[in-house]
Amino acid sequence: MLTLAILPLLGIGGMQLFQAEMPGPTKDRLAPRIQDTARILWSVYVLLTVAETLLLMLGGVDFFNAMCHSFSTLATGGFSNHTLSIAYYDSAYVEGVIILFMFLAGINFSLHFHFLRGRLNAFWQNEEFRLYLGLVIGATLFIMAVNYFSGAVSSMGRNLRDVLFLVVSIVTTTGFGTADFELWPPASKIMLVSLMFIGGCAGSTGGGIKVVRLLLFFKYAHLQLHRLAHPRQVGTIKLGAAKVPQEVLIAILGFLALYIAFFFFASIIVTATGVDIVSGTSAVIATLNNVGPGLLSVGPTQNFGHLPGLAKITLIFCMLAGRLELYTVAVLLTPGFWRMARRPQLRTGLFDRKGRNAPAERTV
Amino acid sequence: MLTLAILPLLGIGGMQLFQAEMPGPTKDRLAPRIQDTARILWSVYVLLTVAETLLLMLGGVDFFNAMCHSFSTLATGGFSNHTLSIAYYDSAYVEGVIILFMFLAGINFSLHFHFLRGRLNAFWQNEEFRLYLGLVIGATLFIMAVNYFSGAVSSMGRNLRDVLFLVVSIVTTTGFGTADFELWPPASKIMLVSLMFIGGCAGSTGGGIKVVRLLLFFKYAHLQLHRLAHPRQVGTIKLGAAKVPQEVLIAILGFLALYIAFFFFASIIVTATGVDIVSGTSAVIATLNNVGPGLLSVGPTQNFGHLPGLAKITLIFCMLAGRLELYTVAVLLTPGFWRMARRPQLRTGLFDRKGRNAPAERTV
Repeated sequence: MLTLAILPLLGIGGMQLFQAEMPGPTKDRLAPRIQDTARILWSVYVLLTVAETLLLMLGGVDFFNAMCHSFSTLATGGFSNHTLSIAYYDSAYVEGVIILFMFLAGINFSLHFHFLRGRLNAFWQNEEFRLYLGLVIGATLFIMAVNYFSGAVSSMGRNLRDVLFLVVSIVTTTGFGTADFELWPPASKIMLVSLMFIGGCAGSTGGGIKVVRLLLFFKYAHLQLHRLAHPRQVGTIKLGAAKVPQEVLIAILGFLALYIAFFFFASIIVTATGVDIVSGTSAVIATLNNVGPGLLSVGPTQNFGHLPGLAKITLIFCMLAGRLELYTVAVLLTPGFWRMARRPQLRTGLFDRKGRNAPAERTV
Repeated sequence: MLTLAILPLLGIGGMQLFQAEMPGPTKDRLAPRIQDTARILWSVYVLLTVAETLLLMLGGVDFFNAMCHSFSTLATGGFSNHTLSIAYYDSAYVEGVIILFMFLAGINFSLHFHFLRGRLNAFWQNEEFRLYLGLVIGATLFIMAVNYFSGAVSSMGRNLRDVLFLVVSIVTTTGFGTADFELWPPASKIMLVSLMFIGGCAGSTGGGIKVVRLLLFFKYAHLQLHRLAHPRQVGTIKLGAAKVPQEVLIAILGFLALYIAFFFFASIIVTATGVDIVSGTSAVIATLNNVGPGLLSVGPTQNFGHLPGLAKITLIFCMLAGRLELYTVAVLLTPGFWRMARRPQLRTGLFDRKGRNAPAERTV
């Protein structure tokens, strides 16, 4: 409810991106009412959870563990019943199933709905999905190459299996582990940390900045360079079939800058408690983006238990702020919000597909 | 010439900020023609250089060294004739003089001009200057407190002297050194690294993102939070007396995001050559922002000589891209620029103070 009520005001909410992003002939939301949309998305969610549970059981995982890991995969939560996480099973089949469902959980859920309704090209028609797929493939190949040339891997098969698992686990902000990436070369670690910031697609269960914001940022940077060569042309940015209004562009670029500012601020507090730089900054990145493991003393084989109290409180705030996309948390600190919350008619200003203000909706 | 010819197209050039930022009754540029403006700024530059040289000589520095260090201070270059940098003199007077002139070199030079012409409140009337001063004081107090509570300092006098020198040296991106901040606690180092990103004021000789962009970003974030409580109000952002056009806001937020993306990209390449994470990322930060020293193996008592060739080439590119504010370098890589450069009439589109397009100026 918070997301639906507050984020639309800024033009950065899930619904805006969700609306702007709907590809092809479908011009409106999944269903006219938010309740119906929620029901559809929940059905997809349950269906995927049941499918993963069954597939894991086919691989020899008992019902209880299969169900728990499915819950944890689809929510991109990353909790495992085993201390070793998914390395416990040491099974290419189990890892393959979990890679597939982590990847699916990182996709906009409305695309699953359209796909299940028979629009077989729903995924490929979606620009955000294509960038997401490209990121996973590109990052996997890059890290495999770095690991190979540094001699950090035993075989190419093992390299592919470990790298693909961790890339998908981290870009979707799930946080399941099979290999200790702390042992990989610096470039592999920096690439994984960069992926933590990106996160899943909008409308997925993943955290992070979201792929669609990265996509719009790339489009913006491309347009700026184009304008240098053609200064008198007015450029527009499109997402799918819809034009992106200038307000949404400002909101997205501002969100990126705010996210980084928040990261620096939290890192200063956490390191002020005496945590070393790599552990402290990676702890902030891992919590702000809801991933799980960081580097060094908060790395994949470690935990956050040893951190001082103030560092933990800061990281708790990072987890909440990251999950709720900053503004929702920041607004709670402003007096104006509490005045507004007491008013009977909380009005929101949604943009329609052409960037005009749609009639205000009453949401509370 | 590159800056004047290309950056105005994006609305992020020095002249825009320079124009938008002119406080008080002065409504236009320093002089009607760019050549006259350049002559005024050069006079200020020469005057400050001569003043610093004389003051250093009063402190017992010989003429040659006083002149060299003055050149290096006003240009925020940071080269010293001594391997120990300013620690060679071990003199509170010399350090005080250099702190003062580094601080002055980090201010918008047009403010010096107005001050010298008799507008004694020129500095204080300027919002960017006030934030710059606040950053220096705030960061100095924070780092002094962290150093004190961690027991990393011998005395409060020494603490103030070392911290103030390094904060001013780093926020102005000069890079002179007196103390080895590698020995300070992690929070002090993270704070210094954050200051590297900020840099001096627009229209100064400092590098980095520039204080005015940070100022506009703060104003933007504040406005976004205000809009949450007052969704139907249209907010505007002002800088001094001038309204900031939406195009300029987009350009600045986009610049911040591009800067961070560039940082991640360069860090991945540098660490891919085998450099450790802290050295690699701090080397990128120190070069992209034209500071000088980084952390660990590129720290204040080290140098960049040991880095592999590919890392050095990347860092060379970072130094150029940072100094020329990214776009000027990026545009050289686009085919459209070269087509435009061959055209006889290169037109630029400057914004005037009200955000309308001023008549196009021919600049090449």
